[in-house]
Amino acid sequence: MQQNKHIEPKVTLVGAGPGDPDLITLKGIKAIQGADVILYDALVNKEILEHTKSTCTKIYVGKRAERLSTSQDYINKLMVDYALTYGHVVRLKGGDPFVFGRGGEELDYIRQFDIPTAVIPGISSSVGLTGLQQIPLTYRGISESFWVITGSTSDGRLSDDLYKAVHTNATVVVLMGYSKLQQIIALYQENGRGELPIALIQNGSLPTERVAVGTVDTILAEVHKNLLGVPAIIILGEVVSKHQSFNRLRNEIQLLEI
Amino acid sequence: MQQNKHIEPKVTLVGAGPGDPDLITLKGIKAIQGADVILYDALVNKEILEHTKSTCTKIYVGKRAERLSTSQDYINKLMVDYALTYGHVVRLKGGDPFVFGRGGEELDYIRQFDIPTAVIPGISSSVGLTGLQQIPLTYRGISESFWVITGSTSDGRLSDDLYKAVHTNATVVVLMGYSKLQQIIALYQENGRGELPIALIQNGSLPTERVAVGTVDTILAEVHKNLLGVPAIIILGEVVSKHQSFNRLRNEIQLLEI
Repeated sequence: MQQNKHIEPKVTLVGAGPGDPDLITLKGIKAIQGADVILYDALVNKEILEHTKSTCTKIYVGKRAERLSTSQDYINKLMVDYALTYGHVVRLKGGDPFVFGRGGEELDYIRQFDIPTAVIPGISSSVGLTGLQQIPLTYRGISESFWVITGSTSDGRLSDDLYKAVHTNATVVVLMGYSKLQQIIALYQENGRGELPIALIQNGSLPTERVAVGTVDTILAEVHKNLLGVPAIIILGEVVSKHQSFNRLRNEIQLLEI
Repeated sequence: MQQNKHIEPKVTLVGAGPGDPDLITLKGIKAIQGADVILYDALVNKEILEHTKSTCTKIYVGKRAERLSTSQDYINKLMVDYALTYGHVVRLKGGDPFVFGRGGEELDYIRQFDIPTAVIPGISSSVGLTGLQQIPLTYRGISESFWVITGSTSDGRLSDDLYKAVHTNATVVVLMGYSKLQQIIALYQENGRGELPIALIQNGSLPTERVAVGTVDTILAEVHKNLLGVPAIIILGEVVSKHQSFNRLRNEIQLLEI
């Protein structure tokens, strides 16, 4: 084997999309086809790896990320080592690399070694899973914006942004926020928004997808009834009333009130 | 020709992505391959239409949308008529169908006729064009959220959401806001945020892409120097300082100040 001959190191961050292996872009597929090494996350659908060439080295870095506190450092070093040794490294991440994917930190590290970088965006679950469920993030006369917020801040508190979002008409999407659901409900109720439509989507775009739709006041019962768990996204906003099961729900509530 | 035999009407809204024809999803391509009729917008890259089967009827509804105030009604009627007459209609829209794409209104209209609907999400320019430029929408310790706001409200004013966004640490992305750039700059300056990094991206992901990076106080000069125009997206937030040309700019400013 010839060592390091004509090696052109490069790292490309690629968004794999929200779960369905067909929700990756053509550009993403082409990068994967050309990759010498792939480092992939827990949330990446394994079927996507079938696009790789036969000589591609595929390395799973998901479990490690959950176990070790130094995992991000370890992944950073792997990317650089593999790029210098083998050439084109594709860092394949669930959703989009820059939507809470720590893609920015990875680029900062790689650039220290003067290794060229590229980014191929992916369908963020915030946009994609709502879309598949036919919940419009924006709607003329109802919502002029959408605000995507992490439910999992580095120090474990609820993001300050949520305390501001509750006072706006923006459609709010909380990613990685399932464990904070009760806190989020309490926040919206304290601000008089108990009747706001809300939805949760678990395992979105996969055969195991589960959805709960209701209002801030009623959603916990729906979540329990439909046995939702992690990973799930939370959508808060009047646009959720456009979901096809919301009308049925509204009729049930009205019947109860008669 | 056999008329209306075994016609199964269906309308699928498909996001074509931000411009580059490779930034559509595999799922979107498959829907296009199966379409009997395609209605496509001005911002859709024509190369994507090459995926259609030879019998597919392709109808451009972009220009009309700019000319006639009744255009949305007209497009709605076309979708329903074609679905009932020919079967599977794909409504192909730039970016994502629900990010200021009026996809929600179209679904509401189609459902009145009991025609099945589906949505295939696309790469929104808000996520995709920032990603390609390696501007991370979120970054640990810098930004816990991003907020996507229209610059073009139905009554021509600046969105109320922008007046709230200026008081947050969210990364703010304004779509269709180029004509409001001076108003947005003034708003941020009035709130003491003249030094906030800002970027504009025109014709993102295409060979004609142009980018301007600066601070709120300096961006107008950069926009003029780089001859930016519509369509452009605006990104405001500390994460813009991660763009590769921002450091060069910062050095230039420091040299001027010495």
